[in-house]
Amino acid sequence: MSKSNCTLLQVADVLRQNQKFVVMCHVRPDGDAIGCSVALAMSLREMGKDVTVWNDDGPGEKLAFLPGTDLVVKPPREPQDFDVAIAVDTSTHPRLGDAPAAVRSARVWINLDHHVSNTGYGDLVYIDVGAPATGQVIYELIRAGGMPFNLAIAENLWAAIATDTGSYQYSNTTARTFEIGAELIRAGVRVGKISEQLFQTHPRRRLELMRVMLNGMKFTCEARVASFALTRAAFTGIEGALPDDTEGLIDTLRSTEGVQIAVFMEEMEGGKVRVSMRSKDPRHDVCAICAKFGGGGHTLAAGARVNGRLEEVETNILNAIADAIHHQP
Amino acid sequence: MSKSNCTLLQVADVLRQNQKFVVMCHVRPDGDAIGCSVALAMSLREMGKDVTVWNDDGPGEKLAFLPGTDLVVKPPREPQDFDVAIAVDTSTHPRLGDAPAAVRSARVWINLDHHVSNTGYGDLVYIDVGAPATGQVIYELIRAGGMPFNLAIAENLWAAIATDTGSYQYSNTTARTFEIGAELIRAGVRVGKISEQLFQTHPRRRLELMRVMLNGMKFTCEARVASFALTRAAFTGIEGALPDDTEGLIDTLRSTEGVQIAVFMEEMEGGKVRVSMRSKDPRHDVCAICAKFGGGGHTLAAGARVNGRLEEVETNILNAIADAIHHQP
Repeated sequence: MSKSNCTLLQVADVLRQNQKFVVMCHVRPDGDAIGCSVALAMSLREMGKDVTVWNDDGPGEKLAFLPGTDLVVKPPREPQDFDVAIAVDTSTHPRLGDAPAAVRSARVWINLDHHVSNTGYGDLVYIDVGAPATGQVIYELIRAGGMPFNLAIAENLWAAIATDTGSYQYSNTTARTFEIGAELIRAGVRVGKISEQLFQTHPRRRLELMRVMLNGMKFTCEARVASFALTRAAFTGIEGALPDDTEGLIDTLRSTEGVQIAVFMEEMEGGKVRVSMRSKDPRHDVCAICAKFGGGGHTLAAGARVNGRLEEVETNILNAIADAIHHQP
Repeated sequence: MSKSNCTLLQVADVLRQNQKFVVMCHVRPDGDAIGCSVALAMSLREMGKDVTVWNDDGPGEKLAFLPGTDLVVKPPREPQDFDVAIAVDTSTHPRLGDAPAAVRSARVWINLDHHVSNTGYGDLVYIDVGAPATGQVIYELIRAGGMPFNLAIAENLWAAIATDTGSYQYSNTTARTFEIGAELIRAGVRVGKISEQLFQTHPRRRLELMRVMLNGMKFTCEARVASFALTRAAFTGIEGALPDDTEGLIDTLRSTEGVQIAVFMEEMEGGKVRVSMRSKDPRHDVCAICAKFGGGGHTLAAGARVNGRLEEVETNILNAIADAIHHQP
């Protein structure tokens, strides 16, 4: 299952032998992307390295509580020179957004990830598709390479792993993931406090969005598919609503008994629709469905950004899902 | 912090030296109560013991997927004789419901729990208030005592621990809890499958209840308190709604930014109101508030059953909370 062309020790050697780094992760970053970027950057800084972290969208309001997230800035217009450029948690090069264009030179490109859909770009590639989160890969890198480790790094890795395992619930969560959880707690992570901020804190406008969704959701394919299409008008009608507020609403659709595929569609500015898809059954590969619309992800969790009007995209997506469900082996 | 009068090894010795057991847990049992009862019963049965498990309310629809939950039956009218009676996860004797009255004789009563409010009833008392779940206590008992352990037992202990930690999120979750999680996975627990059933499966009528709540919730005390009072009429208006369907709705109130105390009140048959209360801050001790109404629990999660009409109980409860908030040190 390995798509790697090197070991973590080789990655650690390259980190040790160089001085000037840029760390990048995918646009619209989640807890795994930000947690990994910041954890790696902090460990490298503890080694005395010069480290820059770039992301088109910044760390986001929800993750700003994590120590070190102020390191994450937008890539500059003027390209810069580095020894090493590192991409974390990003399956395809274009998903890095504008950051690569701001790298004028880098002797080595490193690609650290856990996505099965990773295209293997870069010079040093380490993809552990058995890890539930890239956070687990970064933890192993830090430990295997004898790199600096402290509470702030542990908190960022906790955020990374907890986000991508849905708080230790998803099927790719392993005994090793739990052992790492124990180590992060021993490093001082306060489980209640960090979980509160990651999972149990939503702005009140989020409840409004939930109400809008509960009023507008649809059940198709004999109620095996639950979907909701959020219009721009409904979204902007909720005072203070931010793009991140819709994150995770899909889980409510997904959790409905009998539902096998959940879809959340969101009309965005500029005539695009952001589609998120979840499957409860590996026989329904939502990554394959999203790939038809130019997207990607995992078998059970995938997404796409699709051009077109919301109603049109909704029809096409629901048709593609119905096809997949009815032609399943 | 220990309220114990014995060690786990002493408990294990008593288990080994006797033959006929009854295991009981609190009425309206949750995953910790059922998981512990069944795990302990299965391990004792593997030792060749004769084991009965009683609960007034049975295992409940939601937990019926766990192996061995068919062992949990209602206590009979005709009292029976045992060597040992064991109460798990039950802070006070009355919370065992009708089960104790169905025990005509038992040489030894054992009380295994993790609740700080446990009154210490029974002959052998082992209360680990540092454990996030009684499931962790039962795991340690099985391991310390060299008792039988298998996948079915591991699944019940997973359900117990995951329920009471809110999927490894609450503040009492320890490094040891994560180590036990790793051991349960090594015993064969499939994290995705069991989490799906514990946390990610709700009947569609549950979404209806959520919608009713989002339409009726109240914010008081400068929006530091979020509350919802569910009338009997609203509840019975939802087709097929069962008492368990309201479980966990309070977490949605609790997760709202700025909310310090969340309260869910539910009008029950027979002129009673079931009150659930959650706090996000140890300075707001909801156990103390619920105690004023004859209830109990933990500092951050407590409950009570209160006589009276819903509106009247709601007023009294919200006043008691306002008092507590405004007189906090």
